[in-house]
Order: sequence, then C-alpha cells, then structure tokens
Amino acid sequence: MKLGICGLGKMGLNLVDNLLGNGHEVVAYDIDATLVEAADKLGAEGVHSLEDLTQAFSDRKLIWMMVPAGDITEQLITDLTPYLTENDILMDGGNAFYKDSIRRAQTLEEKGVHYVDIGTSGGMEGARNGACTMVGGKREVVMEIEKLFSDISVENGYLYTGESGSGHFLKMVHNGVEYGMMQAIGEGFDILEKSPFDFDHEAVARVWNNGSVIRSWLMELMQDAFSDDPKLDDIRGVVHASGEGKWTVETAMELETAAPVIALSLMMRNRSLEADTFSGKVVASLRNQFGGHAVEKH
Amino acid sequence: MKLGICGLGKMGLNLVDNLLGNGHEVVAYDIDATLVEAADKLGAEGVHSLEDLTQAFSDRKLIWMMVPAGDITEQLITDLTPYLTENDILMDGGNAFYKDSIRRAQTLEEKGVHYVDIGTSGGMEGARNGACTMVGGKREVVMEIEKLFSDISVENGYLYTGESGSGHFLKMVHNGVEYGMMQAIGEGFDILEKSPFDFDHEAVARVWNNGSVIRSWLMELMQDAFSDDPKLDDIRGVVHASGEGKWTVETAMELETAAPVIALSLMMRNRSLEADTFSGKVVASLRNQFGGHAVEKH
Repeated sequence: MKLGICGLGKMGLNLVDNLLGNGHEVVAYDIDATLVEAADKLGAEGVHSLEDLTQAFSDRKLIWMMVPAGDITEQLITDLTPYLTENDILMDGGNAFYKDSIRRAQTLEEKGVHYVDIGTSGGMEGARNGACTMVGGKREVVMEIEKLFSDISVENGYLYTGESGSGHFLKMVHNGVEYGMMQAIGEGFDILEKSPFDFDHEAVARVWNNGSVIRSWLMELMQDAFSDDPKLDDIRGVVHASGEGKWTVETAMELETAAPVIALSLMMRNRSLEADTFSGKVVASLRNQFGGHAVEKH
Repeated sequence: MKLGICGLGKMGLNLVDNLLGNGHEVVAYDIDATLVEAADKLGAEGVHSLEDLTQAFSDRKLIWMMVPAGDITEQLITDLTPYLTENDILMDGGNAFYKDSIRRAQTLEEKGVHYVDIGTSGGMEGARNGACTMVGGKREVVMEIEKLFSDISVENGYLYTGESGSGHFLKMVHNGVEYGMMQAIGEGFDILEKSPFDFDHEAVARVWNNGSVIRSWLMELMQDAFSDDPKLDDIRGVVHASGEGKWTVETAMELETAAPVIALSLMMRNRSLEADTFSGKVVASLRNQFGGHAVEKH
C-alpha cells in the first residue's frame, strides 16, 4: 500500500523503515528537513509540505500521523483537513486521549474522511522490527487497510479493537498496567538493594527472567539496564509521566472503578519529581507540635 | 546425584519427575502412602519413614524438603535432625520466611549439617519441566551440589544468591513484585470490563503478549484463563495470600523503605476476602451523620 507518514521522530522514522521493509510505498513528511532527508535515505519519498504529501496520492489518501499527542496532533489535523476529501483515511499512531480520537473521528466523518486511532506499543525497537498495534475505527475502513497493521506488527501483535477511540483507550489502559508493573518491579529491587544480603541485581533480573512467574519484557529490560550500570549510579530516580497513566486514573474515576495500584504508581512518579515535599514538612511539623519530635532543618 | 525428597505434593512429585528425567537417583518420602506409590511409579525409590529415607544413603545424605512453610517444615526438621550427621545437606524448597532459614542454618551448622534454602518459582509446570531456583547457603556447600539446581531449572534459571536465607529472601521479594504486577493487570482488565467499548479480554491479552511493553508470563496465563472463561464468570474475585507478600511488606517496613504498591496489592487481597466491610459502614455512616447522605441498608 502507499501511505504518507507525518512526523519522522524516533517512532516515525522507525515506522517508515518497517513499512518499507514490508514492501509498502511511503511518502514521508516532517517540518524538520534533515528528518525528511533521513527518510529519503531509507527509501521513502521525502516531501517538505503537507500539500506535497497529499498531492503524492492520485487516489485515496492514506495518511499516518506519528506526532506527540495534544496540541501538535490537533494542529496537524487542522492543517491537513483542507487537503482531505471523501473516503481518505487519516490515522493517528500517537498516544492521543481516546475522547479526542472519538471527537476527531466524528468531525472528520462529517466530511466523509475516515479516522483510525492506533495504539502502538513496543517502543522504538517495536516500531522498527515489529510493534504491537491496537486499532480502532469503523470496521469496514480498518478491514480495508489492516494488512498495514499486521505487516508492521509481530505475529498476533495487531488487534482491531472496535469503534473509534477503542485503540487509544486500550493503549491508555496498557500504559496504566505498565505503570503498576514498573512500580512493583522498582519496589522489589529497592528492597533487595537495602536488604542484608549482597544481591547482584543483573543476576537477579536474569534468574527472574528464566522460569519465574514474573518473567517479562520489562524484567529483560532491567537485566540490560543493570548490565550497563549495576547500581544505576548514573541516573536519578526521577520519573516523569507522559499522560496515559493520568488518563487511566481519570477514566477509572469516571467509571467509578477501583484502580488503586495504578493510581498510586502515578502518585509515586509525582513524588519522585521532588527532592523534598511540602507534605513531608507538614507532617514533620505536626509531629513536632504535638509530640516534640525533632525536625530536620536545612 | 542421589537425593531424598520429603513431601510429594503437587510441587514435590513434579520435582521428583524432573530430577529423574535429569538422571538423578531419588528416594521419595511422604506421610501419604498413595503419594509414595505415585513416586514409585515415576521411577523413584519410595519409602515410608524418615528412618528409611535416611538409611537409603550409604554416604553423605542429601535431603530436599518440599513441604508447606511454617509448622510443617519446622516439625519435619525436628524429626529429621536425629538422623542427620556431619556434612549432610538438608535443603528447603518451600516458601519459608528467610529469617527462619537463617536460624535453621545456624542451628544445624552446630551439628555440622549444612542447610540450603531454595526459592523456587514457575509453579507446578516449572517444577516438572524447568523451574527458576534461587539458592542460598554456604558457597562451598552449594557449589558441590549446584548441578542439581541447574539440571532442574530452565537455562539461566538457577542463581546462587549468597549466604543462608538469601534464596528465600529473593523468592519472597519475587512474590511481592508478583503481587504488584498481578494487581496492576487486574485493575487494567477491570477498567476494560467497565469501559464504553466491547473488548474481548482474550484478544486483548493476546495482543498485549505480542510486541507490547507489558508482555509477560502473567499476561500469557491471563490469555489462557480468558480462553477458558471469557468473562471469568465461573470464579469469584476472592484472592488469598500465602504469606510471602506479607513478609515482603514487613521487610520493607523493617528496612524503612517505601513499597506502597506491593503493600497496597496485599491490602487489596485482604479487601477481596470480604463481601462488605466495616470500614465502608463507618464511612457511610459518617457521611450520613454530617451530610445526611443516604445509606444503603440490608
């Protein structure tokens, strides 16, 4: 199939490479000309404007956006829309909030343009060599182009998830689960690090990856990380969140369901952003007020 | 090697099978004669008393206990000790608390008997076809018999973890991490179940197992579980805990380290044991007292 890729960052360029390797024809666009050049070198047809991107198609336009969620995605859709006509397909492979995807699908459908929301997992390596793709949108539209998704995914790594928004919803929950799994793994190694024994974290991750109940890709990544830096001395334990965990918690609240471990994993990331906390100062001062417990001063 | 197995339950019998398959000679004991017969049929030498078990050895006795942690293990050690002499090796493959293992190693070492603590993971299937084993004890003692552990484990699934207690400590933390990972997975599917979309949980588990960041053995098990029972209609969401998660949390408190997600995962298991809670009644009655909010009555 011939398709256009908008956004040639870490994920986008790897996706271009993956698509080309699977025999697809790719028109590649980015505002950064050096990235367009990089896509050109991979074998794509690089273009430098959205107009050129859309004019590269003689028939139905098939455009995959791979840009950060939020304002950038919104602006790109606004800029692309004038070039899109009935039956074109616009795909969003970013981590958009599923309600935005539902709204965008509805708005574009009014013009007869189909919107497909693609949750992608597997990181850069997945984007290049085989990702996990969760795809929402009108069934008949997705069915027409699903070879694209199965081609770029590992075997059984593509799922048509249902109506518009469901692909991004599933990716959102995937990331929520990921937050909890990562925090649990972090806490486990923290206990080992402070334990009375002298554990070799890399060896622990390796043995846990072979035959244990908690063997997982995340644990394999920890094995690699500890292999590079046995005590992780080179990095700080500061963990940012990119939005999907927060949306998962917001969604759990909206659905009035209990997701305490995912919520707490997000809160622990927030906690990690501060070297000291005002809540800690409040509690320490209260202990001092009622019990005369010593406080630590600057 | 020739070794005795004490305890021929689900784990013990599978272990016997695994050991025999790896060319080891096994003397098998259980208080239940039918289990001894089952071990006999597998090719082990079944015996019906601890005396017979220990007399099956002309040289150094090598005995592996595979019985529930706590009183049963303690009693078995008390009963076995009179038959053990200098340089014998007693191994505990159960989920003992690591401080018990340290104490037992010290007590037995006074007699010159070596104690080896073995954390095992991978379930029944692992016990039969290749487990993950984390082994603590005196280095020179473990080195002499480590072929046993590497034989019954999957490749790279055996680790000498250090001094006595470290094997069970590592298994304990493994289970703590497992609690957190399982709770996160549970919460994720709960959100999907209540979501506005119609997700097929088995298909979700399958796609998440192929190329995604959260691919893991636990997710593979969920794929199997949803394949058997798409909405898990046949089971209740009641989750017991067998001790290791609690010990992990107690250890985290002793080490004054933060393991909130593992702790909360344990608390959510406790919560699952009750259909209604007294804490819920207290909060509902308080809301009623100060705000006149309706309470639900029996």
